[in-house]
Amino acid sequence: MDLRFKVIVYDIEQGQNEVILNESQAQELDFALHDRLLLKAKGKKAVAIVDYSHKAVPKGGVGVFWEVALALGIKTGDSITLQSCPRPASLEAVRKKLDGKALEPSEVQSIIADLMAQRLSTGELAAFIAGVHTRGMNVDETIALTDAIIASGERLKFSKDGPVISEHSIGGVAADRTSMLFVPIMASMGFRVPKTCSRAISSAAGTADVMELFSGVAFPAKKMKAIVDNVGGCLVWGGAVNMAAADDKLIQIRHPLHLDPKPLLLSSILAKKKAEGAQFVLLDIPTGQGAKVLDLEEARLLAKDFTALGAHLGLTVDVSITDGSEPLMPVVGPVLEARAVLETLQGRGSSALAEKACRLCGISLSMVRKVSFDEGYRLAKQRLDGGHALKKFLEIVHAQDGNPKIKTDDLVPGEHHHTMDAKEGGRIRHVDNKNLSRVVRALGAPEDHYAGLKLFAMKGEHVEKGHPLVELYATSKEKLAYGIETLKAHNPVEIENIVLDVV
Amino acid sequence: MDLRFKVIVYDIEQGQNEVILNESQAQELDFALHDRLLLKAKGKKAVAIVDYSHKAVPKGGVGVFWEVALALGIKTGDSITLQSCPRPASLEAVRKKLDGKALEPSEVQSIIADLMAQRLSTGELAAFIAGVHTRGMNVDETIALTDAIIASGERLKFSKDGPVISEHSIGGVAADRTSMLFVPIMASMGFRVPKTCSRAISSAAGTADVMELFSGVAFPAKKMKAIVDNVGGCLVWGGAVNMAAADDKLIQIRHPLHLDPKPLLLSSILAKKKAEGAQFVLLDIPTGQGAKVLDLEEARLLAKDFTALGAHLGLTVDVSITDGSEPLMPVVGPVLEARAVLETLQGRGSSALAEKACRLCGISLSMVRKVSFDEGYRLAKQRLDGGHALKKFLEIVHAQDGNPKIKTDDLVPGEHHHTMDAKEGGRIRHVDNKNLSRVVRALGAPEDHYAGLKLFAMKGEHVEKGHPLVELYATSKEKLAYGIETLKAHNPVEIENIVLDVV
Repeated sequence: MDLRFKVIVYDIEQGQNEVILNESQAQELDFALHDRLLLKAKGKKAVAIVDYSHKAVPKGGVGVFWEVALALGIKTGDSITLQSCPRPASLEAVRKKLDGKALEPSEVQSIIADLMAQRLSTGELAAFIAGVHTRGMNVDETIALTDAIIASGERLKFSKDGPVISEHSIGGVAADRTSMLFVPIMASMGFRVPKTCSRAISSAAGTADVMELFSGVAFPAKKMKAIVDNVGGCLVWGGAVNMAAADDKLIQIRHPLHLDPKPLLLSSILAKKKAEGAQFVLLDIPTGQGAKVLDLEEARLLAKDFTALGAHLGLTVDVSITDGSEPLMPVVGPVLEARAVLETLQGRGSSALAEKACRLCGISLSMVRKVSFDEGYRLAKQRLDGGHALKKFLEIVHAQDGNPKIKTDDLVPGEHHHTMDAKEGGRIRHVDNKNLSRVVRALGAPEDHYAGLKLFAMKGEHVEKGHPLVELYATSKEKLAYGIETLKAHNPVEIENIVLDVV
Repeated sequence: MDLRFKVIVYDIEQGQNEVILNESQAQELDFALHDRLLLKAKGKKAVAIVDYSHKAVPKGGVGVFWEVALALGIKTGDSITLQSCPRPASLEAVRKKLDGKALEPSEVQSIIADLMAQRLSTGELAAFIAGVHTRGMNVDETIALTDAIIASGERLKFSKDGPVISEHSIGGVAADRTSMLFVPIMASMGFRVPKTCSRAISSAAGTADVMELFSGVAFPAKKMKAIVDNVGGCLVWGGAVNMAAADDKLIQIRHPLHLDPKPLLLSSILAKKKAEGAQFVLLDIPTGQGAKVLDLEEARLLAKDFTALGAHLGLTVDVSITDGSEPLMPVVGPVLEARAVLETLQGRGSSALAEKACRLCGISLSMVRKVSFDEGYRLAKQRLDGGHALKKFLEIVHAQDGNPKIKTDDLVPGEHHHTMDAKEGGRIRHVDNKNLSRVVRALGAPEDHYAGLKLFAMKGEHVEKGHPLVELYATSKEKLAYGIETLKAHNPVEIENIVLDVV
């Protein structure tokens, strides 16, 4: 039975499809709060969860939020039909996982299909993720999940044959902009190096936020392919290319729950690499205090799982386990990191960044070209020191609609700044990634690209009492004040007190 | 840092607290989608989850939905302050449960406290329920959960001393109105018999829906106590008394997920009984095809758990396991069931209902008075046959603001009706509870109290081909037509074909 209603659009984004019914009419129609309805308008369909309105939505009307309005292309005053919608079959699969049973590939596919069609509520998806967390997934389930995620979005296929290499870090290290060197170094050797990057979620800057200081980053998959076909590499924002689309939706649910079950982590990363068209994948697992992976043993287990799953997907995967307990560069925040990347490409920036990038390139070259790691490292260093990587980077910037004539002096942080001096002298024992992010976010990053923080010394270096330790940059006095307040509350720099107390 | 905003109220009920921010302002303030904020207005506080608006909510404004407006007592144009809200500590406990560890009583309490304060999102609560489903809870955890649920709402304490008895069925049987006889029979003997009933969730009528044909059912706890102090018993809607309030919220999450983990089922029921002030509890577990519990073994295990948990809570619990595969009476729907209850109290109604009620009373009397079951059954039958139960029932109706002079002729179903004849003759093998509910809901129940269905024969009885089998009643032609359509698609009556085929 189709029922016809007049639409009221509410310009509110909620992260799931919802439809608002007049409460007494809903009860007459036997549509309970949180039931699922099928909505049809203008030849399009959407499934949505029922909310109630007591007065705002009259009988004969239905309210919809932004997601549904977008999906159906409807506006206030349009006509829409509703009908009750059966419970999606994939919920049986969710239940089966919660009960500890392995899922068939078709069941995994049904969950991803219903996720993509917005047929599952946030609560139902949370239950699925909790099920994977508690019950795990075997290799076949994880392969099926990865394949289903790949199939949920676009896939790149490049015009020329030859090795396609992609690099990815599981993240958590402040100012780790390795990809911005890895891509141009490898592309300058003639490899295809497609790279989708993320924006910051809880950090002060993602690679996409930093790249945005040089060029555009939001392109459809077709344009991404054209850029790589043309200049060999790219650094684009993953959120715009619609590859592995189901993964973005899963992350939206996983993130607030702080649940990162291994099968979802593995499938998330490798689905993206496969969709990017990569044949060779280099994964970086930063490990140590404050990093996502705490110890070497855990990192090695994860590395093994990545390699095994990669093999099943036809990917050659190498993993580097790196020290992730300290920031990679002494500058944090989009514009300061962009400047440091450009300086490093020019041969006068952070040695730690150059070193890490050349090592990862070395590993990749030994995987693709079967040369020794030392030989690979040396080749990469040559490309960097010889300016080939800089030239390639600026080609990529140009291909991504940026200015290839950009100079370091174009990259300056906010004019309001404040220096914090060391209250004690000593050796720096630790710089905390999470507190760094917290301070730079308080200054306005990542949305405000010109917020930033500079460290005058890194782990192991000495500071003198009263000498500068940290400098903050902001685009307004208010943001600077909030950053200073946050710096005081969450000091990122630990100085070693050799003398703990004097009695 | 407190930020002050102008409120826009949206009259939409969503089942969780949400606050709508202007998207670009939210990003400037570093409030991500689905972050948690603390809202303050008029000396009250509420926690809410962030949604985004692109245009509807301007900078400097915040939108709130019905739940938040109610909690803070605010209206459009009022002023409100926002501040970021730390991740609730109870989420660590949710994670611990998901990781398979037993929770401390204080951790269980923190989850229930955060649930009551609306500090947990639907997804986070779904993850908790999934954790309990997959990992279970030991006895100490279940006791802590039950105690926390009891503490989340009001508790009754009666004025007089002496046994307080409560009866509860885990449900699933159509037309099972046993409580409506149990309460007056036991109360007529001088016991206190407080009873909270539910409205239908997926069935055609809950006891609260049926009782509503006689009297009011929505009373605060104080009035419920006064009714029981006054006439010895009551039959009120549990949704209005605010007892075991946390349980109502858990059920709102559990129901759409179809997750009913045993520790939540046990705590849900016994918390309500304890909050009602009961010392003796009789639990009915309908068992069999189509019931919530499928076999005797499962029912016995559940009974053991109920008895053990009850003992820890200071409750004497007896359990009756009854056949739940068939409807208890040949009439389904609020008004027809109300009429059948009144007829039975008058000594001329359903013998199955009278029989079940007297048996449950017999078990209760053997528990409270230490008489034999046979003696208890006989005493109950006397109260029913002697009209004492009817008199007490009408006293309860009067105390609940109903008309104690009500007659069966006041209880008539909708005027539109339709008879379906048997297409074949034979013995009735099975009447399906779920399909009965589906048909009567299609006719308009439970909201429309005058929708109903009458069966001309029950399991084991013979029908002749072409004789009436089912009659439907509705208050409009349209509802009747939809009921007939549903009856054809979901036939509740299976007739035994002795001759399966003739070759």
